[in-house]
Amino acid sequence: MDQVTLTLDEVREVAAKALAAAGMSARNVEIMADLVTRAERDDCHAHGLFRIPGYVTSMASGRCNGAAEPAVEDAGPGLVKVDARDGFAPVAHAAGRPMLVEKARSQGIAVMALVNNYNFNALWCDIEPLAEDGLVAIACANTRAFMAPWGGRTPLFGTNPFAFACPRRDKPPMVFDMATAASARGEIMIAARDGHQVAEGLGVDKDGNPTTDPSAILEGAQLAFGGYKGAAIVLMVELLGAILTGGLNSTESFEQFAAYNDGGPSNAGECVIAIDPGAFHGGDADRFLERVEALFGAMLADGARLPGDRRHDARPRTEKDGIAIPKALYDQLTKLGGG
Amino acid sequence: MDQVTLTLDEVREVAAKALAAAGMSARNVEIMADLVTRAERDDCHAHGLFRIPGYVTSMASGRCNGAAEPAVEDAGPGLVKVDARDGFAPVAHAAGRPMLVEKARSQGIAVMALVNNYNFNALWCDIEPLAEDGLVAIACANTRAFMAPWGGRTPLFGTNPFAFACPRRDKPPMVFDMATAASARGEIMIAARDGHQVAEGLGVDKDGNPTTDPSAILEGAQLAFGGYKGAAIVLMVELLGAILTGGLNSTESFEQFAAYNDGGPSNAGECVIAIDPGAFHGGDADRFLERVEALFGAMLADGARLPGDRRHDARPRTEKDGIAIPKALYDQLTKLGGG
Repeated sequence: MDQVTLTLDEVREVAAKALAAAGMSARNVEIMADLVTRAERDDCHAHGLFRIPGYVTSMASGRCNGAAEPAVEDAGPGLVKVDARDGFAPVAHAAGRPMLVEKARSQGIAVMALVNNYNFNALWCDIEPLAEDGLVAIACANTRAFMAPWGGRTPLFGTNPFAFACPRRDKPPMVFDMATAASARGEIMIAARDGHQVAEGLGVDKDGNPTTDPSAILEGAQLAFGGYKGAAIVLMVELLGAILTGGLNSTESFEQFAAYNDGGPSNAGECVIAIDPGAFHGGDADRFLERVEALFGAMLADGARLPGDRRHDARPRTEKDGIAIPKALYDQLTKLGGG
Repeated sequence: MDQVTLTLDEVREVAAKALAAAGMSARNVEIMADLVTRAERDDCHAHGLFRIPGYVTSMASGRCNGAAEPAVEDAGPGLVKVDARDGFAPVAHAAGRPMLVEKARSQGIAVMALVNNYNFNALWCDIEPLAEDGLVAIACANTRAFMAPWGGRTPLFGTNPFAFACPRRDKPPMVFDMATAASARGEIMIAARDGHQVAEGLGVDKDGNPTTDPSAILEGAQLAFGGYKGAAIVLMVELLGAILTGGLNSTESFEQFAAYNDGGPSNAGECVIAIDPGAFHGGDADRFLERVEALFGAMLADGARLPGDRRHDARPRTEKDGIAIPKALYDQLTKLGGG
């Protein structure tokens, strides 16, 4: 496959041009191009330039608003509510984050709800800035329904991502971000296309029987990671991400998507909890950071890797050498950007 | 095996007598006997009367204080800090809970940290009362180290339980509670005793190699549920339960236990987040509860069970028929209680 190598500045420019040409506002282009560049910088190509066509088609369909100006509401001493106004999640996060940070610092803990919000990016991108500001953060988001409940057969839950961020001393934050499904949907779609079986435990057919036939899973439902324990996490993410926030739940999100079928993001609720790590140390986070480093040091000495280390390892390389993307994608993006 | 059937009132009385005879204060006996009775009522025998001897030996060793009066500190607008003063977790929860509830209602969200705290009970018992008071709750607790990090071999984490509670309309709350290890330690100990192999994925030997030999796992380390995703959850529980709160981490807890080796609980940090479900609905939880019931109804219609349903199903039965325990345990408990 022909590849094109781009510097990170070129990534930003290609993304910005394509999004601007699709009618996205200048402020939103800045946020979204930065998001895509951070994903490529961290070797997360699946959430980088690859997503631009989906952003564009979801604006073209009239479903997503690239010029959205999110409405941020001070909903209580520890509460921030963001109506994303049908815009993309990073724009809504950027709008609500300053109030969330201020409240977490003054109250010790605060929670932000995002609704009418379209999330097509990795959740780590949304909460890493909170940890860069010194806060511990938890994020739950639902997506459109593809996953059955434990013991069931009908898609009631999205692949519902869950993320956690922890600040570090003099290092990028430790941030993990996981779909709570046993596998990415794309992995099952590729197996179906190529005629391969998938591993056990990824899904059930439409009658609820376990199967390794990817086409049967696509007609049936995916399953949670980690058996019944993972399925409980999925349920929690749905309750916090969709129900607590007042966002669409995963079946509502599925129906909303199906009415457009534009290949773009799900309309997803998101719930972000932020905690001041100095909260229980008289506001002084130093002791927390010291103990975090001791724990991470013990993990590394034991031969373990920290979640997100692969992303951090990629940074010096991509900043120096740039990133490679398929030429077909590059051509598509430059065409979207006006040539 | 000879069994003895007890009414729930008799459970409470047997527990109370044994704990009082071991020197526990009257107020703490009341809380702990109620805890044990709730566990037996819900068919959770492993956290019921079965635990009484461990409570007793951990007081006899001088490690745990049965007469502890927890110190509750108003640590910030959204923060409650409880120093359990070497007492048992349910006593500390009972002391801190009213302030946590008040803060969650007035701020929208609040967090309680518990330190110098001994948790020998199921975490659902600690947070179910929050959901009975109408709050959504998340709890993370560490325990003494038995579990390796992902890719490692050395026990750095406890079986670190994670729990979540959600209020329901006119029904007991939905509460789940999971060890984040792939299996209970007791399950591996029983297999070692009986000479059986265990399933794959439960642990590694002391060199970090996967094994199904239970004795090798007991010398090595247990593993997280759900592979690398579950391992990330384990890490989060450690960071929130131990590090954020200022409690002992799991290796410190292991060392503290080893110095006594009294068969009792771990010295565990606990972190409990409580959220007002009406927070993002102008303080009105009705819309939240309505959507919770719609989601749970769809799950049940699909043939799924809700987490905790087995516990709720047990209640009418145990309230009517009582519960059966081994006669040897009954004899041990009545002897502890003075005959």
